[in-house]
Amino acid sequence: MTSAFAFLLASRQCEIAELEQLARSCELVGAVARLVHALQRERGISNVFLSSRGQRFARQRREQQAECERAEAGLRQWLDALETSATPVGNGSRLFSRIALVLHALEGLPALRERITGHELVAAEATAAFSVLIASLLAVVFEAADSATDPDVSRALVALLHLMQGKEFAGQERALGARSFATGHIDAAGQQQWRHLIESQQSCLQVFADFSQAEGAPAGVASPPSPGSADLARLRHLGCTGDGALDSAFSDAWYETCTRRIDDLHADEDRLARHLRTLCERRIAQAREDLSDQRAVLDRLLGQARPVEPDAPAPLGRQLGRAVFEMAQTQSRRLQDLSGELEAARARLNDRKTIERAKGLLMAHRQISEDEAYKALRQLAMNQNKRLVDVAEALLSLAEVLPARDRPFDGAQDGAKKSSFG
Amino acid sequence: MTSAFAFLLASRQCEIAELEQLARSCELVGAVARLVHALQRERGISNVFLSSRGQRFARQRREQQAECERAEAGLRQWLDALETSATPVGNGSRLFSRIALVLHALEGLPALRERITGHELVAAEATAAFSVLIASLLAVVFEAADSATDPDVSRALVALLHLMQGKEFAGQERALGARSFATGHIDAAGQQQWRHLIESQQSCLQVFADFSQAEGAPAGVASPPSPGSADLARLRHLGCTGDGALDSAFSDAWYETCTRRIDDLHADEDRLARHLRTLCERRIAQAREDLSDQRAVLDRLLGQARPVEPDAPAPLGRQLGRAVFEMAQTQSRRLQDLSGELEAARARLNDRKTIERAKGLLMAHRQISEDEAYKALRQLAMNQNKRLVDVAEALLSLAEVLPARDRPFDGAQDGAKKSSFG
Repeated sequence: MTSAFAFLLASRQCEIAELEQLARSCELVGAVARLVHALQRERGISNVFLSSRGQRFARQRREQQAECERAEAGLRQWLDALETSATPVGNGSRLFSRIALVLHALEGLPALRERITGHELVAAEATAAFSVLIASLLAVVFEAADSATDPDVSRALVALLHLMQGKEFAGQERALGARSFATGHIDAAGQQQWRHLIESQQSCLQVFADFSQAEGAPAGVASPPSPGSADLARLRHLGCTGDGALDSAFSDAWYETCTRRIDDLHADEDRLARHLRTLCERRIAQAREDLSDQRAVLDRLLGQARPVEPDAPAPLGRQLGRAVFEMAQTQSRRLQDLSGELEAARARLNDRKTIERAKGLLMAHRQISEDEAYKALRQLAMNQNKRLVDVAEALLSLAEVLPARDRPFDGAQDGAKKSSFG
Repeated sequence: MTSAFAFLLASRQCEIAELEQLARSCELVGAVARLVHALQRERGISNVFLSSRGQRFARQRREQQAECERAEAGLRQWLDALETSATPVGNGSRLFSRIALVLHALEGLPALRERITGHELVAAEATAAFSVLIASLLAVVFEAADSATDPDVSRALVALLHLMQGKEFAGQERALGARSFATGHIDAAGQQQWRHLIESQQSCLQVFADFSQAEGAPAGVASPPSPGSADLARLRHLGCTGDGALDSAFSDAWYETCTRRIDDLHADEDRLARHLRTLCERRIAQAREDLSDQRAVLDRLLGQARPVEPDAPAPLGRQLGRAVFEMAQTQSRRLQDLSGELEAARARLNDRKTIERAKGLLMAHRQISEDEAYKALRQLAMNQNKRLVDVAEALLSLAEVLPARDRPFDGAQDGAKKSSFG
């Protein structure tokens, strides 16, 4: 017969299991962050290599490839453990499909490198290929953040996701600038893309800065100007606002300024990853201690409840029942409170989901690509001077009045939706 | 070595496992709904029994108690299976702590019945005791709805939760009216409570009605007037708006009208529970079929990829790699889209979490009880003519400027929050 007692302890044990799973996700995110950073460096180096027609950075490229391989091996170790482990993974279906995409993209990496070595690609194409791979890695971090069950860990993961995304925009900016300074010119579309990268970067890093400030992190971690920031502003101004002619003498300064900045951001990533580890460890230790305290109290009461017949099954004495009730009530209230806080911490992830849904709607409705749908949304937001998520929400609220058209991937489900129940 | 192929299939398998778990949660909710209904009847019958000083409904009470015991045994069977099963439970920590509270409340039921038999309680006290037990059961349904991973199932569970909650308000209204008509009078506080029960009931049933309409359910399920509704309106008017003197001749009519209405709502519950079962079965069958289709395509390509050396490990041919990539991409997009839809389906649950958080804040800040905090929020909402959730949100947004005070249950966590990272 199941008892309140058994479920009270089972609840604590589940909580610990959930936290341990979260700790594993955080380790996975750390391994992803290291590979992303190595790939961003390789992308930057490959850009200089290609733009200089192989004259520069050939050695650095070889060294960086070896670095990437080490980081990849580190990630694969986590993935092997994940695939063979019997422990459940929160949000497994989405996480695993994201990992499948990462592994597919990694399988194409040797071929990409060969084509760069053979100068079969221009710098912009190589950048785009690396960026697709990195985007697939960031999507894994998104899923990990989305499956977090603890508000503090969730907040830290959301901050890390935005820091990584902001750093990725910084890496793309470095690549774009490196190409432009190396070739000595940039067109209007390039300048618009550059401004877009700066803007997106700042909005992502602001999320991280807000988090750092709220957590009382040491000053100067993120948004306050990092050294070289004045140089960066000057070089950006040259690149984005001029008539398109650029002085290639600034190539090195640009590359170094950006690299310093990206390395600073990477140091922040490392700090935040360590913070995440400490946070998980502390939570798990606390939950274990609470479980053991509860057990001790209940065992003592259980002992008192059966002093007469030591062999008989212990009846739940009135005092024990009361203790179980009070513990279960405190636990329920605490978990419910955490769950509410979690929703608040996830708000930014939900914004992203809203934007994704609106994009999907546009893609299905106008039969356009993902990229075109994103640009259309962005244009709408700029024209109306609204946030992207507000435009996305407005669009979704109109979904019902738009003529229905089956989306390719869930036609079967549409049938189910229209049927009546009962 | 882990491959994209392996993770693609693992993603599908996880999806199936998540759906199977959801199907089990829905069965649990069905068992909870049956016990709630039996207890609501017993509460109603006990009210008449107590108000008539044991003259009426003694036989019905015995029969209904047997009915409750059968329903309780049905629920305990599910709980036993849940406790001993090795399969993971989504949201286990919260669900289990809720179940612990239910089991504790059930342990007190025999004593409650004895006190009713011995007329040691007045009707209002007995009603309150049953209502606490039923509230603990509804909290289990809330957690089940909160852990749903499929948007259609989530929508149906949210509708069922509101239908059950609305029916519970209807049950409390029946009890209040039964007491009032039986004793022949009602005071102003009782009338206010009555109006509050009607209002809360309607807003819950509206959620269910919206869902039924969206799903194209047969007309007349919920919000449209059920037979006896004109009688109900007339009797409500007598009870809520007069000078407090009531004609006890209406006792039977009141009890029967309400009971008919509650039984109608229970029929809706049954239909919705069946709909949920069908929905889960259909989803699982579809996911299994998709998995087997994917496997067939990939096995065929895998066969084509190794015609030369049948014993060598199969290399992932270019065509196979492409197929894996396309499947993983479709799957990711579909799952992401579902996840966005899920957030939308959960919006009403999140409203409730917001209200819970605001309540918790008030309780901690003003050192008041849960009930007092709820009443304070409600009063604020009425004074400002705003929705409860909007007042709750406004309050939470002010949390930072309110003087900090450690909540009793997470003092340890507050320490962590204030610490810096790195």
